[in-house]
Amino acid sequence: MKIDGYSFSAKSVGFKKNGKLDAGIMLSEKPLRVSAVFTKNKIKAAPVIISKRNSGNIIKALAVNSGNANACNGKDGFKAAGDILSALAAEANISAENILVCSTGVIGEKLDPGLFKKFIPEMVSSASPVNIEDFARCIMTTDTFPKIVEKKIFKKYKIIGIAKGSGMIMPDMATMLAFIFTDLPVKKEIADKIFRECVDASFNSITVDGDTSTNDTAAFFYPDISAFSGNFTVAGEGENYEILKSTLFEVCLGLSEMLVKDGEGATKAVKISVINAYTRPGAKKIAFTVANSPLFKTMLTGEDLNWGRIIAAVGRANVRIRPDAIDIYVQDKLVVKNSVSSGLIDKETEETVLSPDKINIKIDLNAGKESFDVLTCNLTKEYVDINGSYRS
Amino acid sequence: MKIDGYSFSAKSVGFKKNGKLDAGIMLSEKPLRVSAVFTKNKIKAAPVIISKRNSGNIIKALAVNSGNANACNGKDGFKAAGDILSALAAEANISAENILVCSTGVIGEKLDPGLFKKFIPEMVSSASPVNIEDFARCIMTTDTFPKIVEKKIFKKYKIIGIAKGSGMIMPDMATMLAFIFTDLPVKKEIADKIFRECVDASFNSITVDGDTSTNDTAAFFYPDISAFSGNFTVAGEGENYEILKSTLFEVCLGLSEMLVKDGEGATKAVKISVINAYTRPGAKKIAFTVANSPLFKTMLTGEDLNWGRIIAAVGRANVRIRPDAIDIYVQDKLVVKNSVSSGLIDKETEETVLSPDKINIKIDLNAGKESFDVLTCNLTKEYVDINGSYRS
Repeated sequence: MKIDGYSFSAKSVGFKKNGKLDAGIMLSEKPLRVSAVFTKNKIKAAPVIISKRNSGNIIKALAVNSGNANACNGKDGFKAAGDILSALAAEANISAENILVCSTGVIGEKLDPGLFKKFIPEMVSSASPVNIEDFARCIMTTDTFPKIVEKKIFKKYKIIGIAKGSGMIMPDMATMLAFIFTDLPVKKEIADKIFRECVDASFNSITVDGDTSTNDTAAFFYPDISAFSGNFTVAGEGENYEILKSTLFEVCLGLSEMLVKDGEGATKAVKISVINAYTRPGAKKIAFTVANSPLFKTMLTGEDLNWGRIIAAVGRANVRIRPDAIDIYVQDKLVVKNSVSSGLIDKETEETVLSPDKINIKIDLNAGKESFDVLTCNLTKEYVDINGSYRS
Repeated sequence: MKIDGYSFSAKSVGFKKNGKLDAGIMLSEKPLRVSAVFTKNKIKAAPVIISKRNSGNIIKALAVNSGNANACNGKDGFKAAGDILSALAAEANISAENILVCSTGVIGEKLDPGLFKKFIPEMVSSASPVNIEDFARCIMTTDTFPKIVEKKIFKKYKIIGIAKGSGMIMPDMATMLAFIFTDLPVKKEIADKIFRECVDASFNSITVDGDTSTNDTAAFFYPDISAFSGNFTVAGEGENYEILKSTLFEVCLGLSEMLVKDGEGATKAVKISVINAYTRPGAKKIAFTVANSPLFKTMLTGEDLNWGRIIAAVGRANVRIRPDAIDIYVQDKLVVKNSVSSGLIDKETEETVLSPDKINIKIDLNAGKESFDVLTCNLTKEYVDINGSYRS
C-alpha cells in the first residue's frame, strides 16, 4: 500500500518501554496544504498548539510519536517539540514552520527529544512510500491493530487514512490521531469545509468512554493546488465536489468504525440512532448520553435487554422530549412503544437479541424531524484492567 | 433505634426473586408535612408523579417497594401505585391523598399491586417504631448494607435518615431513595428551604457512575406545626434555625457518604474539591467531569498516579479556566503546580499515594473564589459484573 508523493518512516526510539514502533515521519515530495481539527480540551499539549499554528502554512512533513503525550510539560514541552522539528527540518532541508507534530501517550511526563532526534537521519534516508503501515503502527498506544482505510477517487487518485484510538474516544476529538493523505490537489477552502463536515459525522460521532484528551488531532493532507500543473479541479459544488466529499467521508467513517471496534476491552460495536428529535443538537445529546451511560454499556456486556437503562438515559439528557411518546428498536425489533414495553418481545428474543457483536439501537422520539447517529462500544472488565494499569 | 410517632413494617412480598424484604410502610401517629425533592429525569416513574402531587398535603403514611421501579408502565403503572395507596388508606383509615409512594428496581416491568396489597393488613397491624431498620432494608437493591443515620437535636428530638443507592448515583437524584424523619415540628416553608440546601450539598454532590434514574426521591418528614400544642419553634433565622440546618445536613451528608462507600463494586471513597474557580457552577461541572471520568475512576482502582487523567478531565469540562495555572493535590501532596508536574513526588509516594481506601483530590484553579466538593468512588471490574447481570 502506498500513495504517490508521500514517504514514511517509523522506528522504535524508546518512548515505549516495550520496544515497539513509537516515532515516525512523513515527508512529502510536493508542497502540501492541510485541513486540521484539534482537541477542544482547554488543556492542550504543546504539539497541538504548534501544529495549529503551522497548519496555515505549506506543509512538507509530519513528525509523530506515541508513548508520551508531551502534554502539561510547560515550556519544556514546547522546547522538546521544537527541537524535534528543528532536527527534522535540518535533515530534510525544509523549514520547521512547514512541519506538523503530534504526540500521544502519557500526560505530564517529560519528553526527551534526544530519543527522537537520534533517529531522524536514519528516518529521512530510509523514508519510503511503502512504510505507511509502519507509520500507522508507530502511533498506536493501547490499540490492538493498526487502522488504515484506502479509497480510489477520480480513477487515478487515492485517499488513504490512518488513525489510532482507543480509549478516551469522544466527540470533539479524543486521544485520537487521524491522518488522511491524498494525491488529489484540492483548494484549501474547499477541503476545510468538506473535512469539517466529514469529521463531525465520523470522528466526532463516536465515543468509547466519554473522555477527551489533550492531544487529539485529525488532519487531511493534499497537494497545494497552486503548485499543481494539471487542469483537474474540484470546485465548491457540483458532481466532483460531492464525489470528493462522499469518498473522504467513507475514509473517515471507516476509521471511526475501526476505532470503536478497537475500543479498550470492547467486544461489541454499537450504533445508536436517535430520530425525530426536535433539534439536531438535542438528538446528539441524547445519543451521547445513552452511549456514555455505564449502565447501558455494561448491559450490553451482560447481554441482558434491560431497556429501562436506555429510556432512563434518554430522560436524563436534559433535552426537550415527549416523555410518553418514545419508541425503542433493538436490532430492528420494537421493544418499547410509547415509552412502555411493546409486549412484542418473547423470552427467547429477550435473551438473545443482544448476543451479536454488532448492535443497532434506534430511539424514535416522535417529536420533531432531526436525527443523529453515534457509534460506541460496550464496557467490559478488560477496560478496567487496561486502564488500571496503563503505565505499568 | 426508633423515633416517636413513626411506625414501620417491612415484608418480603415477592417483587425480589431472592426472598428478601421488598415492601414496607411507614405510618405516622400525628399529621406530618413533607419537604421532598424528586428526579429531574424527564422520564418519571408513576410513583414519583403521584408523590409529587401528594407532597403538598398532610402526610400520614408512606408506602415503598424495591425490585420493581414501576417506571415506563404507562396507565398500568399509575393504576398499580393507586391500588396500593387505596388499599393502605382503607386499612389504616386515612385518605390515599395523604400517602407518599416510592418504588425502585427494574424499569418497564409491570408491577403487580396484588403482591403488595396481600400484605397490607399484616403490615398495618404489625407496624412498630422498632421496625425502622427493616424498613431501611426493604428499599435496598444492589446495596450491600442498610444506610441509617441518627442524630439528636434540641435535646428531646431526633432526626433519623435512611437511604438506598447504589449504582446510578448522580446529582439531581439518582436511583436514590432517602427518607428523613423527625419528631421536631417545623414550619413547611422553613423545612423546604433548609432541605433544598442540604440536598444540594449532599445527595446532589455525589456520583457513582453518572447515571440518574426515573425514580429518585428524597423526602424529609416532620410533624405539622399547626397540630403542635407546644411552644418550641424554629424560625426562619437565628440559632435554632442554624442548629436545625446543620443537624439535618449532617444526616444528609452521612447518608451520602454511605451511598458512595457502597457504590456498586467500589473499594475507595473519593472526595474531589475544586477550589478558586471563577464560578460555583463551573467548579461543580469540573468536579463532576473528573468524578465521572472512567479513566480517572479506573486509575484509582489501579492505584497508579497518572495525574494527566485528572487535568485532561478538568480541561474538557468546557469551563473557563486558566489552562497554565492549575495546581493538583492528592492526599494533600502537591502533585501538579501551574499545570506541570510539581517534581515533588518521589517514586515511593507515586506508587503508594493512591493505596488508601479514602482519597482526597484538591484541584486549585487559581482563577476565582468559588468552590465545589463532590464525593465519588472508583470503577472496578465488580461494577461491570454487577451491572452486566443485574436482573439475572
